[in-house]
Amino acid sequence: MMEIVLFPLPTPIVKIGDDVSEILISSAEKNVGGFKEGDVLVVTSKIVSTAGGRVIDLTKVSPSEFACSIAKLIDKPPSHVEVILREARSIIRMRQKMIITETKHGFICANSGVDQSNVEGEKCAVTLPKDPDKNARDIRKAIKKRCDVDVAVIISDTFGRPFRQGVLNVAVGCSGLIPVIDLRGEEDLFGYKLQSTEIAVADELAATAGLLMGQTDARIPAVIIRGYRYKKGEIPARKIIREPETDIFR
Amino acid sequence: MMEIVLFPLPTPIVKIGDDVSEILISSAEKNVGGFKEGDVLVVTSKIVSTAGGRVIDLTKVSPSEFACSIAKLIDKPPSHVEVILREARSIIRMRQKMIITETKHGFICANSGVDQSNVEGEKCAVTLPKDPDKNARDIRKAIKKRCDVDVAVIISDTFGRPFRQGVLNVAVGCSGLIPVIDLRGEEDLFGYKLQSTEIAVADELAATAGLLMGQTDARIPAVIIRGYRYKKGEIPARKIIREPETDIFR
Repeated sequence: MMEIVLFPLPTPIVKIGDDVSEILISSAEKNVGGFKEGDVLVVTSKIVSTAGGRVIDLTKVSPSEFACSIAKLIDKPPSHVEVILREARSIIRMRQKMIITETKHGFICANSGVDQSNVEGEKCAVTLPKDPDKNARDIRKAIKKRCDVDVAVIISDTFGRPFRQGVLNVAVGCSGLIPVIDLRGEEDLFGYKLQSTEIAVADELAATAGLLMGQTDARIPAVIIRGYRYKKGEIPARKIIREPETDIFR
Repeated sequence: MMEIVLFPLPTPIVKIGDDVSEILISSAEKNVGGFKEGDVLVVTSKIVSTAGGRVIDLTKVSPSEFACSIAKLIDKPPSHVEVILREARSIIRMRQKMIITETKHGFICANSGVDQSNVEGEKCAVTLPKDPDKNARDIRKAIKKRCDVDVAVIISDTFGRPFRQGVLNVAVGCSGLIPVIDLRGEEDLFGYKLQSTEIAVADELAATAGLLMGQTDARIPAVIIRGYRYKKGEIPARKIIREPETDIFR
């Protein structure tokens, strides 16, 4: 029976313009002797966004009138709200000092995923990467090219959720694995055909990495999950999002 | 830098009346040399329910008139729907052949967590344990008594969620650890005070165990997570549920 091992990948503080793939490869080489075939690498969106320049100086943002009125409602600086609105495709809920939006990628989360924590300078905000699936593909390709091993890559972010307290790490980008496994039609232990079980594998892996990433210590921005047998394939994390028509909670 | 290791705990098929703690202790001894201080043990609710006799023979259930009319809507046998309704405190959504209920514990999930898969005999259904927090405490106590080690125990079940496809393992019972960690007021890497970050630690651990539990192979009904430093304490998993007043998605 195979066990699964989780390795933290510490890195120096990632700055705008840094090469995230190179940083992760050198951390993997230094800390765990490099990547192995079949590893899953989970990377927090925060360093991908930062390296990609998705850091916004809030002192240079001029908030719209709408942003200013929302800012009062949700008790945030107007410039921060302006960035949240620019990242949003639609507003899903606005209540109790919270704003839940649908991001331009289609993710439903608080504040369009715009974050003020772990950013150099209090006046900055970091947005989600523009195309986290592409970031995952790029990191995967770089590892293949430099180390000649095939890994799966997940870009993760912490999202809150309805009904239950606390945030959980979820996959906002992925490459090299099928993010949701459909077991419908397979038989269980007693030969009973499963009717409706789809497993959110990419989110399971992201949540797992969350155990080592923590929140206050951004120096563990990536985790290797070794020994998990995933199903290879190329389906973007965007596809994890429920179609609005079948989502009974929008 | 510490790594985390996940060990699968295979067991024989669990039957009504079995002593789950004994089964898990003997599997741990056989497969990983026993429990260690600080382990997290995640156990699927399925075996706890089965051992506890929460298996219902559907041929002996007489469905109410309401159950019969719902049965047509959601395309399930009336006796199955009857059990779902008996386990429910309220109905949250009923649409698109789905019924999302609030269970008597307060969990919000599809079909009140009543499951037809992995049950001996197609005509049976398994409900969630009556008091999964108590089950977690009992297993923890048994391990303390028999092995003299302090572990944290989580009882898990797979729940779907709004906005995203696929089910994820979550904590429905726990003992020995604080299930949601509040980081508000702590400082991040740049000295910025976190405003609102609560981490759903118990759900992270449950999702992690999901990597080894799978769905079609119920012979891995438990997983040991070793090396994760959790915060000790005794708060029931019931407390993870958002208060209805602050839940903007009910």
